Amino acid sequence: MDRRSFLKTSALGGASAALAAPAIAQGAGRTLTMVCAWPRGLAGVWDAVERFVDNVQTMSDGALTIDARAAGELVGGLEVFDAVTAGQADMYHAADYYFTGQHPAWAYFTTTPFGMTAPEMMTWYYGMDGQRLHRQLGEVFGLHTTIAGQTGAQGGGWFRKQINTVADFQGLKLRMPGLGGEVVGKLGASVQVMAAGEIYQALSSGALDGTEWVGPWSDEKLGLQEVCDYFYPAGFHEPGSALSVNTNLEVFNSLTPAQQRIIEVAAAECHQFDYALFNANNGPALERLISGGTQIQEFSDEIWDAYGQASQEVLDSHMDDDIFREIRTSADAAMSTTAGWLGRSDNVYTRQRTRVLSSM
Amino acid sequence: MDRRSFLKTSALGGASAALAAPAIAQGAGRTLTMVCAWPRGLAGVWDAVERFVDNVQTMSDGALTIDARAAGELVGGLEVFDAVTAGQADMYHAADYYFTGQHPAWAYFTTTPFGMTAPEMMTWYYGMDGQRLHRQLGEVFGLHTTIAGQTGAQGGGWFRKQINTVADFQGLKLRMPGLGGEVVGKLGASVQVMAAGEIYQALSSGALDGTEWVGPWSDEKLGLQEVCDYFYPAGFHEPGSALSVNTNLEVFNSLTPAQQRIIEVAAAECHQFDYALFNANNGPALERLISGGTQIQEFSDEIWDAYGQASQEVLDSHMDDDIFREIRTSADAAMSTTAGWLGRSDNVYTRQRTRVLSSM
Repeated sequence: MDRRSFLKTSALGGASAALAAPAIAQGAGRTLTMVCAWPRGLAGVWDAVERFVDNVQTMSDGALTIDARAAGELVGGLEVFDAVTAGQADMYHAADYYFTGQHPAWAYFTTTPFGMTAPEMMTWYYGMDGQRLHRQLGEVFGLHTTIAGQTGAQGGGWFRKQINTVADFQGLKLRMPGLGGEVVGKLGASVQVMAAGEIYQALSSGALDGTEWVGPWSDEKLGLQEVCDYFYPAGFHEPGSALSVNTNLEVFNSLTPAQQRIIEVAAAECHQFDYALFNANNGPALERLISGGTQIQEFSDEIWDAYGQASQEVLDSHMDDDIFREIRTSADAAMSTTAGWLGRSDNVYTRQRTRVLSSM
Repeated sequence: MDRRSFLKTSALGGASAALAAPAIAQGAGRTLTMVCAWPRGLAGVWDAVERFVDNVQTMSDGALTIDARAAGELVGGLEVFDAVTAGQADMYHAADYYFTGQHPAWAYFTTTPFGMTAPEMMTWYYGMDGQRLHRQLGEVFGLHTTIAGQTGAQGGGWFRKQINTVADFQGLKLRMPGLGGEVVGKLGASVQVMAAGEIYQALSSGALDGTEWVGPWSDEKLGLQEVCDYFYPAGFHEPGSALSVNTNLEVFNSLTPAQQRIIEVAAAECHQFDYALFNANNGPALERLISGGTQIQEFSDEIWDAYGQASQEVLDSHMDDDIFREIRTSADAAMSTTAGWLGRSDNVYTRQRTRVLSSM
């Protein structure tokens, strides 16, 4: 993206004078403009925006107000990074993997193929080196970074026919963005890029054979169960997607220590809240989908092997970058050790609990 | 517990006048006394206390200070509930299942046998009815309730010999407090009550055959690997233990809306942080235990079946209480629907990821 022409053509130039006004009008109060990658009301995601805004405003007793603007209101959804690094907006709410064009390591602060689940992300981010590395990457771009939302595991995808072997990917017209798309491309899929509003029609007409979206809650809203018979709940491409509130570093440094802490704690609270909200809605939505006749499937071991191999290849291609290598090494080590504990405790427990309770 | 004699004999009477002083001395600032169920420095648990205290102080810009007192400093660790409900201290940090003598439903806001994992607890508490039901139970006792810490899954236990069948529990001298202890008692174990400081010696001398404690991080600190050969990481009795900050309701209602929100958001942040901290330390500790020669075991299906049956019997015994029934019904329904989603997404994913990555 050409930042100069973006700034010239965006609605931001005209709006910035008006945006600055509230900070003066409110006396002691200060208003920060937060540009968001999302349309207003997007399920689970706009909820995170509203939660964060309300908590900041209430905890600061009105001293800090966040003016959240949806995609397109000031800048386009994918232009928020440039707007904030250029100082044309104060902060953004987005998924940092949208900005892998700026640096491939941004992916690690949303999600990566064969990467961490949400509980593993919490562990790396708040209990190990994740947050420190996010801050370090942010500083390169003049940003204060912190995660502030979480969709949990994204579904493996919706398909019009069963996917049984790797050969079934050959020529399959599949909508999957980002690194996941690169992976299924290596498996032979014809990867399509398509906005949310076009997916239903494309599946209906046969222009698409399958798609990933978010999870049962969001997918049901899009009506994917009406145009695909098969849903694969477990996928490799987004095992737990974090969202971020990233603030222009000069703006962040101009805040009081209390205001800075309020932003950080409200963001962390929002990460957990949003994970809970997605889980709380995905569970009942999955039950409705099953009742409605959707066929629930699991990919075969052969397909998982191919996903794993191709995912490593995609990630390996960035290992000549020092920052990427440092972050990937940290994330992989954290994932391995945390999975070692959770795999022997939580996973054994939940498997036994399911077995025992279903037989009672 | 006899509240009257507790209040008369505790150190609280003498200390309360001195405690009230800071609120006056600091002018606009207000200090709340938080009595804790823990010794100062207890790994993972006192970290949660310090995190919460620091975030409240910083976010309120010093307007609200929490004076955290460890067990025994003002009142004993199990006396904090009475101290706060009686208005002799402002708030407590503890595990609410210590107070099942006050009401059996308090168990649901820490953990229950065959109950929720930490991610399921997050989902019920923040995304479904958990927080509302916790508040409702708290109001009966004049408390504002909110969870503010999380140990994650607690280990299934340490044993001097392998436990292969239900018959092996017959006469087994086992330290396990609370509802878990009731369950293994039904299986024939001789259940022992014993403070942390006595466990090592009791295992060493053969006065105990086994014990549960917290998880690899805390257990290693206690030296259990030196006196037991066998560790069972997955257990039934505490699948994810939340800790609470509960505030005297009159005190809470006297706070400003900003201060109230600061307490709630800092507590929620602390729940996620503490879960991350325990996971981040349990993973490496488990690896060290394995390297050191500890034998890692899983209970047999027969034992899990017996755990499940006895757990339901223990919980069923309280179902004549309306509040207990409402809370258990809500928790069980939440657990079932959330496990339905996580079981088909996260659990399938992590099983496949472990399989694929270990073969690469």
